[in-house]
Amino acid sequence: MSTFEKLSINTATIKKASLAEALELSVAAGLKHIGLWRDKVAEVGLETAVELVKASGLQVSSLCRGGFLTAADGAGQAAALADNKAAILEAKALGTTEIIMVVGGLPDFSVSPGAVDGGGEATAVAGGKDIVLARQRVADRLAELVPFALEHGVRLVLEPLHPMYAADRAVLSTLGQALDLAAPHPVEAVGVVVDTFHVWWDPSLREQIARAGAAGRIASYQVCDFNLPIAADALLSRGFMGDGVIDFASIGQWVAEAGYNGVVEVEIFNEDIWNLPYAQVVDTVKARYAELVEPHLVRELAG
Amino acid sequence: MSTFEKLSINTATIKKASLAEALELSVAAGLKHIGLWRDKVAEVGLETAVELVKASGLQVSSLCRGGFLTAADGAGQAAALADNKAAILEAKALGTTEIIMVVGGLPDFSVSPGAVDGGGEATAVAGGKDIVLARQRVADRLAELVPFALEHGVRLVLEPLHPMYAADRAVLSTLGQALDLAAPHPVEAVGVVVDTFHVWWDPSLREQIARAGAAGRIASYQVCDFNLPIAADALLSRGFMGDGVIDFASIGQWVAEAGYNGVVEVEIFNEDIWNLPYAQVVDTVKARYAELVEPHLVRELAG
Repeated sequence: MSTFEKLSINTATIKKASLAEALELSVAAGLKHIGLWRDKVAEVGLETAVELVKASGLQVSSLCRGGFLTAADGAGQAAALADNKAAILEAKALGTTEIIMVVGGLPDFSVSPGAVDGGGEATAVAGGKDIVLARQRVADRLAELVPFALEHGVRLVLEPLHPMYAADRAVLSTLGQALDLAAPHPVEAVGVVVDTFHVWWDPSLREQIARAGAAGRIASYQVCDFNLPIAADALLSRGFMGDGVIDFASIGQWVAEAGYNGVVEVEIFNEDIWNLPYAQVVDTVKARYAELVEPHLVRELAG
Repeated sequence: MSTFEKLSINTATIKKASLAEALELSVAAGLKHIGLWRDKVAEVGLETAVELVKASGLQVSSLCRGGFLTAADGAGQAAALADNKAAILEAKALGTTEIIMVVGGLPDFSVSPGAVDGGGEATAVAGGKDIVLARQRVADRLAELVPFALEHGVRLVLEPLHPMYAADRAVLSTLGQALDLAAPHPVEAVGVVVDTFHVWWDPSLREQIARAGAAGRIASYQVCDFNLPIAADALLSRGFMGDGVIDFASIGQWVAEAGYNGVVEVEIFNEDIWNLPYAQVVDTVKARYAELVEPHLVRELAG
């Protein structure tokens, strides 16, 4: 019987709940952690959010999201740095060391940071489709943010996104690429998240999870399923574990073998799930976690 | 001014045209090649298809598609081998050395070979979500097909598909993975196709295209764009070059640097394009090819 000691439900999974409701649901469910999106914090203001979190007794497992570092122009780059510094301070105030970074898409197509579903319009620029250049800009902005993150004790957690979002959300598409980006920086400053939805298909996944573990870079293990057919809005094609195509046994085993034994966060964007009663969502997440995820996160003893 | 010497339009781009119509359109457009799907061949029967192709004077640049090699059961595996041998013989009869291989998805989710849009239902099997196992089965079936392909002078052309199709169409997701699969076999027997739609996002694309060229494995360069937002049916999110997010300048240059100077095939699955008058589709393909693709396929002279 699971104690759910390590399960954390991200507010994006119960998107329509307020921060207060999400905290209450997690406490009632016997959880010790919660994952937060910045939109829920902004709804009540940072100060109130900090108070609510403290009163709940929950530990914030991560704050989502910083990033959007691919702007080609000086004004866009300055705005991105300012927004990420604000996110780092919010994370610190909320008591988490982990800020999840969605690095941004091609300048011509990237959505803006903010709400779960992005929003905002991109305008065409010279070289706006050059993904090699966009990736270089991510490396450049990351280097500029690292000192600030170190100073405040917050880790920039790079999230490789599924390649179907490479143009509009993240030119960071694989765990190997994330580890290459992280390599020049201290492990306290730059980590990676293994999100099953985004990386399950990667032929080098086992090897790159092992590499991430050996380098001390795994900051979070996020789980949800990849549903088929892909939802009409491709962003919302996530599902409860077990409803899609992902083999949680293999990936969980690889994460455990890599030495990760931290919090497991469940983050699901799915219109149908958003429309369910919150308590039903939480119960289903707990049941699927206990059945499909947790049993594989035990590190086998050698010999 | 382009002579369109190397442009080939795949019948999937004008899906509703008959084989005879597609041949006639290509000839009228001044093209020298055509790419064929097996459904168009099946509609008239192989013998008639061979006659029509001969009468047109066109060279078949590739036949699409073989593959679907991931069945977990003996009957499914035997059926796949039989179907692929038939495809090899069809390719040979039609005068092309290239049979494009879509390797198949996870056993629990893979569509069946056949029409452009797949079809058929998968049933759950033990280990049916294990992508590592499914990939091993592809390697095993490929090894079984190589002698037959060599005997008939037809090359099995591995097509990495975009990771959003990893579960239902191809567990082969990157060019690097395709080259690893090809490596044990003679270059005359196993090649790879670089299809911009599927690989544009890959952080190791330049390096893997160079590797493919050095190994003599590039059998085809296929171009179309990746449209955003992703179409409600994700299979149909392809677009005319220039309508989506892909940087054809960079990829074309990498392909040219890798030494490829063969046919460029345009294969677009898109409901809106399928509903346009065929001649308008052909004209648009030619214009976009001449503007966005061909200029970058010139190999720069060193020094």
